[in-house]
Amino acid sequence: VTDLSAADLAIPVLGPSRYASPIATLLGDRRTSAHYVAADDRVLVDDTLAMASARNVAVADLPAFEAGGPRREIYFDPIHTRAAIVTCGGLCPGLNDVIRGLVLELSRQYGVNEIYGFRNGYQGMVAEAGLDPIGLSPDVVGRIHEQGGTMLGTSRGAQDPDRVVDRLVELGIDILFVLGGDGSMRGAQGIVDAATARGLDLAVVGVPKTIDNDIPFIDHSFGFQTAFSTAKDAIRAAHIEASAVPQGVGLVRLMGRHSGFIACYAALANNDADFVLIPEVPFRLEGADGLLARLRHRVTEQGHAVVVVAEGAGQHLLRRNPAQTDASGNAKLHDIGQLLGQRITDHFAAAGAPLVLRYLDPSYSIRSVPANAYDAAYCVRLAHTAVHAAMAGRTGLVVGRWHGRFVHLPIALATGSRNQVDPNGDLWLAVLEATGQPAFS
Amino acid sequence: VTDLSAADLAIPVLGPSRYASPIATLLGDRRTSAHYVAADDRVLVDDTLAMASARNVAVADLPAFEAGGPRREIYFDPIHTRAAIVTCGGLCPGLNDVIRGLVLELSRQYGVNEIYGFRNGYQGMVAEAGLDPIGLSPDVVGRIHEQGGTMLGTSRGAQDPDRVVDRLVELGIDILFVLGGDGSMRGAQGIVDAATARGLDLAVVGVPKTIDNDIPFIDHSFGFQTAFSTAKDAIRAAHIEASAVPQGVGLVRLMGRHSGFIACYAALANNDADFVLIPEVPFRLEGADGLLARLRHRVTEQGHAVVVVAEGAGQHLLRRNPAQTDASGNAKLHDIGQLLGQRITDHFAAAGAPLVLRYLDPSYSIRSVPANAYDAAYCVRLAHTAVHAAMAGRTGLVVGRWHGRFVHLPIALATGSRNQVDPNGDLWLAVLEATGQPAFS
Amino acid sequence: VTDLSAADLAIPVLGPSRYASPIATLLGDRRTSAHYVAADDRVLVDDTLAMASARNVAVADLPAFEAGGPRREIYFDPIHTRAAIVTCGGLCPGLNDVIRGLVLELSRQYGVNEIYGFRNGYQGMVAEAGLDPIGLSPDVVGRIHEQGGTMLGTSRGAQDPDRVVDRLVELGIDILFVLGGDGSMRGAQGIVDAATARGLDLAVVGVPKTIDNDIPFIDHSFGFQTAFSTAKDAIRAAHIEASAVPQGVGLVRLMGRHSGFIACYAALANNDADFVLIPEVPFRLEGADGLLARLRHRVTEQGHAVVVVAEGAGQHLLRRNPAQTDASGNAKLHDIGQLLGQRITDHFAAAGAPLVLRYLDPSYSIRSVPANAYDAAYCVRLAHTAVHAAMAGRTGLVVGRWHGRFVHLPIALATGSRNQVDPNGDLWLAVLEATGQPAFS
Amino acid sequence: VTDLSAADLAIPVLGPSRYASPIATLLGDRRTSAHYVAADDRVLVDDTLAMASARNVAVADLPAFEAGGPRREIYFDPIHTRAAIVTCGGLCPGLNDVIRGLVLELSRQYGVNEIYGFRNGYQGMVAEAGLDPIGLSPDVVGRIHEQGGTMLGTSRGAQDPDRVVDRLVELGIDILFVLGGDGSMRGAQGIVDAATARGLDLAVVGVPKTIDNDIPFIDHSFGFQTAFSTAKDAIRAAHIEASAVPQGVGLVRLMGRHSGFIACYAALANNDADFVLIPEVPFRLEGADGLLARLRHRVTEQGHAVVVVAEGAGQHLLRRNPAQTDASGNAKLHDIGQLLGQRITDHFAAAGAPLVLRYLDPSYSIRSVPANAYDAAYCVRLAHTAVHAAMAGRTGLVVGRWHGRFVHLPIALATGSRNQVDPNGDLWLAVLEATGQPAFS
Repeated sequence: VTDLSAADLAIPVLGPSRYASPIATLLGDRRTSAHYVAADDRVLVDDTLAMASARNVAVADLPAFEAGGPRREIYFDPIHTRAAIVTCGGLCPGLNDVIRGLVLELSRQYGVNEIYGFRNGYQGMVAEAGLDPIGLSPDVVGRIHEQGGTMLGTSRGAQDPDRVVDRLVELGIDILFVLGGDGSMRGAQGIVDAATARGLDLAVVGVPKTIDNDIPFIDHSFGFQTAFSTAKDAIRAAHIEASAVPQGVGLVRLMGRHSGFIACYAALANNDADFVLIPEVPFRLEGADGLLARLRHRVTEQGHAVVVVAEGAGQHLLRRNPAQTDASGNAKLHDIGQLLGQRITDHFAAAGAPLVLRYLDPSYSIRSVPANAYDAAYCVRLAHTAVHAAMAGRTGLVVGRWHGRFVHLPIALATGSRNQVDPNGDLWLAVLEATGQPAFS
Repeated sequence: VTDLSAADLAIPVLGPSRYASPIATLLGDRRTSAHYVAADDRVLVDDTLAMASARNVAVADLPAFEAGGPRREIYFDPIHTRAAIVTCGGLCPGLNDVIRGLVLELSRQYGVNEIYGFRNGYQGMVAEAGLDPIGLSPDVVGRIHEQGGTMLGTSRGAQDPDRVVDRLVELGIDILFVLGGDGSMRGAQGIVDAATARGLDLAVVGVPKTIDNDIPFIDHSFGFQTAFSTAKDAIRAAHIEASAVPQGVGLVRLMGRHSGFIACYAALANNDADFVLIPEVPFRLEGADGLLARLRHRVTEQGHAVVVVAEGAGQHLLRRNPAQTDASGNAKLHDIGQLLGQRITDHFAAAGAPLVLRYLDPSYSIRSVPANAYDAAYCVRLAHTAVHAAMAGRTGLVVGRWHGRFVHLPIALATGSRNQVDPNGDLWLAVLEATGQPAFS
Repeated sequence: VTDLSAADLAIPVLGPSRYASPIATLLGDRRTSAHYVAADDRVLVDDTLAMASARNVAVADLPAFEAGGPRREIYFDPIHTRAAIVTCGGLCPGLNDVIRGLVLELSRQYGVNEIYGFRNGYQGMVAEAGLDPIGLSPDVVGRIHEQGGTMLGTSRGAQDPDRVVDRLVELGIDILFVLGGDGSMRGAQGIVDAATARGLDLAVVGVPKTIDNDIPFIDHSFGFQTAFSTAKDAIRAAHIEASAVPQGVGLVRLMGRHSGFIACYAALANNDADFVLIPEVPFRLEGADGLLARLRHRVTEQGHAVVVVAEGAGQHLLRRNPAQTDASGNAKLHDIGQLLGQRITDHFAAAGAPLVLRYLDPSYSIRSVPANAYDAAYCVRLAHTAVHAAMAGRTGLVVGRWHGRFVHLPIALATGSRNQVDPNGDLWLAVLEATGQPAFS
Repeated sequence: VTDLSAADLAIPVLGPSRYASPIATLLGDRRTSAHYVAADDRVLVDDTLAMASARNVAVADLPAFEAGGPRREIYFDPIHTRAAIVTCGGLCPGLNDVIRGLVLELSRQYGVNEIYGFRNGYQGMVAEAGLDPIGLSPDVVGRIHEQGGTMLGTSRGAQDPDRVVDRLVELGIDILFVLGGDGSMRGAQGIVDAATARGLDLAVVGVPKTIDNDIPFIDHSFGFQTAFSTAKDAIRAAHIEASAVPQGVGLVRLMGRHSGFIACYAALANNDADFVLIPEVPFRLEGADGLLARLRHRVTEQGHAVVVVAEGAGQHLLRRNPAQTDASGNAKLHDIGQLLGQRITDHFAAAGAPLVLRYLDPSYSIRSVPANAYDAAYCVRLAHTAVHAAMAGRTGLVVGRWHGRFVHLPIALATGSRNQVDPNGDLWLAVLEATGQPAFS
C-alpha cells in the first residue's frame, strides 16, 4: 500500500469536460451546493496509523483515490451519446440491480437515450457470435432487480480486443460498462488499450463483480452480503443436521477460490461453525494437532461439529495439474469438499468411531438469489458512480467504495492483486474468537 | 470534525494493564503476530481531502480514534472479574446478538465466568425495582440471536446514577456493558462520573443502539441494515397497492426522529418511492412547487405514486408542544404520517381528483425482527471489541466502526451530536437520482 | 348442507362438446387413461357421518359437486376462441399466478392464441372508461407470478351487465374469466344472465378470490395460506415487543370482515397470542369475565399479553351506520382495532396499572406479497381447472377445491352464504386449546 | 380402497373411558356443544363417485375412518399419567412443532405434568444406550418451534420391542408418542404388540413423519409444504443459472425415494422445470423419444432447460445391489442425479453440442428448515389430535388428516402401502400441463 505512487492511482481522462451536467436539474436551489465533486477531491488509501511512524508525514503525500460522483461539467453530450453494457463471468447477486441502475441514471438523469445490452458476455460483443444487442430503456429493465441472474446473460472467456473494438465502432458506442471479475477487467483494459491505440473517444468503466470479495481496495464487492447471508443458511442447516444425530458432522463447502471472506462472514453470522478453513490459512489434516484429530475431539466433546471449507482452502493437500483451466483461464481446483468428506470418513472409521456425515454444497443456490436490500442500495449507488465517471470522460477505471466513499480505481490496480483475509487481521481473529478453533500447526 | 482535539478523542483508562491476555491461547504460533492492538494505533477521523488544502498538514496532527481490538496486556484479572449487561430503550434488531457475543467472548475467550444481565433497562438496576439480575452463560444465551427483541427486557427512562452505582457495588460488578441509545449513553456517562467520584474500579462500555443510525462517527449502527431491509418491504407493498388501482397513492411512515437514514436507504433499495421526506430536508406542502401539487402531478402522469416519510420529517408543519416528552425525555412528535394522509386526501378532494390512499406504518414490525446475516456478524464483532476494551480497563467509551475499523469513541463524542443525512452529500443525491424527486422550495 | 338438491349443484352447459381435447397430445401413450373426467364424476359435499343416522341413505342420493378437470371432448374450437381475464376487488396473493396459469394453459395446452386482459376490474370492461384491454401471451405474463398485486390492475364496484356484455360482443370474447370476491361473482352472474338473455355463446368462469377465506364449499381460497403466514409475522412482532417491556400488550388487527380464519390460523401458527377475537364469536369487554379484566389478569400473571382481533370482530360494540358503504357496497366497519386500543388504555389507566401498548395493523403488507409455494401451485391448478371448465362449455360457475378435489360450483352457491369459523368446530377448539383463552360470557 | 373392511379401519381401545375430559374447562358455556367427538363419528375413505356405479350403495356400508378430536370422557386420569415422546428417522420440518404441541396440550389442557423426551430415537429407549430421557414442560419447549431439527435428537434403526417395553415399564410410562416414518411406525406396532402380550395399559400413538409425503390416507404429511417450498427455491436457482448462459442445463435432485410429490409440487410452484422425473413414471434416456434427445431439443429451442429428478426415479437405469441397505433397512439407492448429470454431459459431448451443466442437490438444506406457517398450524393440530386419542385410551394408531378432517388410522393401514403420485391422476396431469413435458416412451 505504501508503495503506491500518484501515477498508480491516476485515472485516464478522455479530454476536458465541455458540457454542463444535467444533474443540476435535480438539485434546484441546491445547485450551488457541494454535491459536485471537485477536481482534486481525494480519499486516502490508508487511514490507520501508528502515531510514532506518522509523525513527519505530510497528508498530501499519502496515496489517495480520486473521488467518485457527479462533476459540474461533463465530457459527453448526452443527446449524442450511445452507451452499452455487458455482464461477464459467473453469476453474482446484484447484476440486474447494476444494469437497471445504469439504465435509469443514464436515461432519466443524463438524458442518454441510446443504451444497448450485449448478450452473453464478451461472446456477444464480436460480430461472429451473431447475437444482436438488446435495446435497453427504463421499461425494459422494469423489475429485473427483483430477480437473480442477469437479464443480459453471461459467459466465461475473453475475445480479441480488436474485434470487440471493431464492433463498438460499428455500433457507434461511446461508453462501455463492463460488469465482471478480474479476468473480465483485464479484458476491459485490453479494450481500453486497443481503443487508445486507434485514438478512439471511448470510455470504458468497470463495475467489479466478485462474489468472493477478492477485489483489492474495495470495502466489499456488490452481492457479497447477499452471498454470505445465503451461505449462512447452509451452515445453519449443517448444524441442525449434525446436532440432531449422535456423532454428527456437518461439512459445508462454500465459494472462495483464493479468498475466504464468504466462509469467514457466514461463520460469524451464525456462530455455529467449529472449524473454518480458508485459502489464506494453511492447515494440516493429520497429527495430534491436525484437523482430523481435533474434529474427532470436538465431536466427542460436544456430540457433533460443523466444518466450513472455502473451495480454495487446502489446495496443498491435493495434487494440482496446472494444465487444467476453465474457460476463464482459472486453474481448476480439485474439490477440497469431497476430499475432506472422504478423509473425515476414513479417519473416523479407522478410529472405530461412529459418524454421520452431512455434506452441503450450496454454491449454485447462492449465486442466483436476488440482491438483498443492502446490496440493492449499494448496486444503485455503484451504478450512479459509474455513470458519473463515464459521462465525465473517465476511462480505464473501475468504481468501488473505499472506507465508505465512492472512488475511482485504475483497472490495473484493481486487477493487480487480490483482496484476501489477513491471517493477522481482525476478521480472522474474530473467526477464531467465534469458533474457538485452534491453530492447526 | 476539524475542531476535534486529541483531548476530545481520548479514552479514560482505569490504570495500567497488568495481566497477559488469554486471547493468546487462541493464536497458537501466531502469538507474536500483529493481532494485538498497539498503544498508539489510531484511525483518522477524516480521510477525505481536497489536495490543495492538505498540502502542509502533518498526518499525526489529524484527529484520530483509538483503535479497538485485543491488547497484549489487560487490566482485569478474568478469574476475579464480574461483568454485567443492560439493554435500554426501544427494540432494535441485534440486541440479542450483542448480548450473546458479550457472554461468549467473556466466558470462552477471557474466562470470565460471572456475568449478569439486568432486566428491563436501567429500571432493573436500582434495588427498589426488586428485579434480580439473571445469571448469564453460554447455555443461557443459547440461540437467542435467532429471535428478535432482547432476552433481558428493556424500558425507557433514566435512574439516579448514585443508586445505580450503589447496586453495582453491592453486586461486586467490575464491568458494565450498556446497550442503548443516546439517552442511555448519557446515563452511562452519569454512572462513569459517579463511579469516578467514588474512586471505583468500574469499566463502563457502551454499545450504541439506534435503529435510526443517528450516532455520529459510526459507519452505521447495528440493526440498521436489518431495519431498512424490512422497511423496504413496506415500500414495495405500498407500491404494489398503489399501482394496482387507478389513482393510487401509497404512503409509508418510517422511523427516523431526527435522521432520515432508514427512509433514504429503504427507498434506494427498491427504487419504488417517488418522494422521500426526511427531517434534514424541509419541504412545503402547498403551492405549485409543494409536495401536494407535485404528488398529484406524478399520479396524473404515471397513474400512481409512493411517498415515504420519516417520522421526524415536516415537524415545522405541526404545532409543537415542547412540554410533551416521552419517558426517555424525547419530545413527542406529532404524527406526520397521519397529517400527510389527511392533507393528501383533502388536496385530491379539493381538486376533484379520485384517490385511493394506502397508509402503512410498519414500525413495530421492523424493530422486532432478528438481525440479518450482516448485522449478526457485525454485532458479534462489536461485542468482541467491547469486551477487549473493558478487559483492557477502558471506560466511558462506546465501541463503533469507522471506515471499516473498530474504534473507541468517548461517550461525550458519541452523544454530543447527531449523525444526519447531509443534504449536500452523496446519500441524499443518490435518493434524488433514484426518485427523480424535485426540490420543493 | 343437507338441504342441497341436485339442481342447486348443477352447472350450466353452453351445449354439447364437439371437439377432441388437445390435452391428448400431452398424454402420449396414456391417452386412453383415466386422466379425463367422465360426465358423471362427482365429489360428495359431505363425507362425515354419524353411523346411526347414515344407516339407510343411498350414496347416489347425497349432494355432490361436478368434478373439475379436462374432458375428452370440448365445446370451443381453440383456434377460433377468444378469451379474456379480469381481476376485481382488493389485492390478494396469487392473482398474478392465476392470470399466468390461465394464459399458459390456454395458449400452450389448448392452442388459444387470442387472450385479453381487462384493466382495473369491471371498470375497464365498459367502453366509457377508455381502457383498452392488454394482449396476453406467455411472454407478457413472463415472471409476473413472482410479484405481488395484479398485472391487470383492479378496482372496486360493479358495472351495468348489459354494457359489459356489449363490450364483450364488440371484442368477440367467447370466454371470460373473473377473478374476484363475492360481489364480483354476483357481477359475473349478472353477465351470465345478460348473455343468456341474448342467447350468446359466452362462458363465464370465476376463480373466487377472498383473502378472508370466506367463500363456502372451498377448502381454502388461493392466497389464504400466504396471507396468514404474513399475519403470523405480525403476531410474532407484537409478542416480542410486548414481552420486552414491563406490562406490555401487543394488539394486532388482522383482516377478516365476516370470518376469522386469518386470525385463527395465524394465531395457531405461532402460538404467541393470548386472545383471539373473531366475528363469529361474540365477546364482552366489561365485567369480571370480560376481555379487559382478563387481559389485565393475564398481563399481571405473565408480564405481557398479545391480543389478535379480526377487523369484523366486536361490531356489536360499535355504533353502526348502515348508510356507510364502500365502493363495493360493503358496509364500512368501525375500526375495532382502534376502539380496543383505546378501551385497553382506559381500563389500565382506571386501574392505575402501567401499560405499554403496541398496535400493529399489517393489512396492506399482507395483501401485496407474492404467493408462497403452496399457493403458487394451487393457483396454477385452479387456473387449469378453470380453463378446462370453460373449454368444455361450462358457464356460471366458479372453480374450487373441496376435500382435495377440484370441483365446479354454481356461482349462486358460492355467493349464497359465507364460509365462517364454526364456534362449535375443531378449528375454533384448536384456537382455544392453543391460547388457553377463556370464554368471555 | 374399496377392499377396506370395518376391521381394517378399527382402532384398538385400552378400555372404557372413565374420567370427564378437562377440555370442558376451556369451553365455558359451550360445554354442551358439538366440540366433542361422538363414538360413531366417521369420515368416508372415498368421497368421489361415478354416479352410475354408486346408485345402490348404502352410505353406512362405505369404509370410513374414526374421527379424531376430544372425547367427553377419557381413559387416563391426567394427574396420574406419565407420557413420553420419541422422534425417529431423518429430519423433517415441524418435528419441534409437534413436540411442543404435545407438551403444551398435555400440560395445559389435560393437566398431565410428567412428560419425558427420549433422546436420539429408539436408540435412546433402551437402557444400554445410557441416555436419560429429558423432562419436558412448557418452559423447556419454549420457542423450539422456531428452529429446525428436533430438540430430542434422532437416529435411524429399530430396537428390540421387548427391551423398549421393559424401559417404558421401568419409567412408568402410560402414553408413548412416536414421531417417525413407516419403519418407525412398524417399530411402534411392535411395541404395541409386546405391551398387549404383557397386558400392559400402554397407549402408543404415532404422528407420521415423512418428508416425501408417502404415507397413505393422509392429505399430506407435516413438513411437506415447507419442504417443497424450499425445493422450489432450488429449481428457481437452477433456472436462473441455466438461463444465464448459452446452452445451460440445470439439474436438480430432490428427495423422494418412492414418491415424487416434492418434485411435482415444487415444479408446479415455480413453473420453471422443463422435465420432472419421478419414481412412479418410468422414462427412457436413449432414443428419439428418450429424455436425452428431448432435453437437447429443448435446449436448442429455448436456449436452456431445467430437469428435476426425484432421488428414486429411474432406478431401472441403475444396477441395484439389494444387499445394500441403510440403518433403517431402506435399500440404498444409486444416485440418479449423478448418473443423469454424467449421461447428459456425455450425450451433449457426443452430439458436439456445447453444454453448461449446473447440478444442485439441496436435500440437507430442505430437511432442516423450520416449519412454515401452514405446517406450524398443522403440527399443532396433529399434536392436539394425538393427545386426545391417547387420553381417550386409543392405541396402535397414527393421527392424520383426511379430506380436511383429523382422523385415526390403524398403524397397519398407514404402513401397509405407500402414497404415490398417480400417473393417471390430476397431480401428474397438472405437472404435464405446467411443463409441457412429453411422454418418454
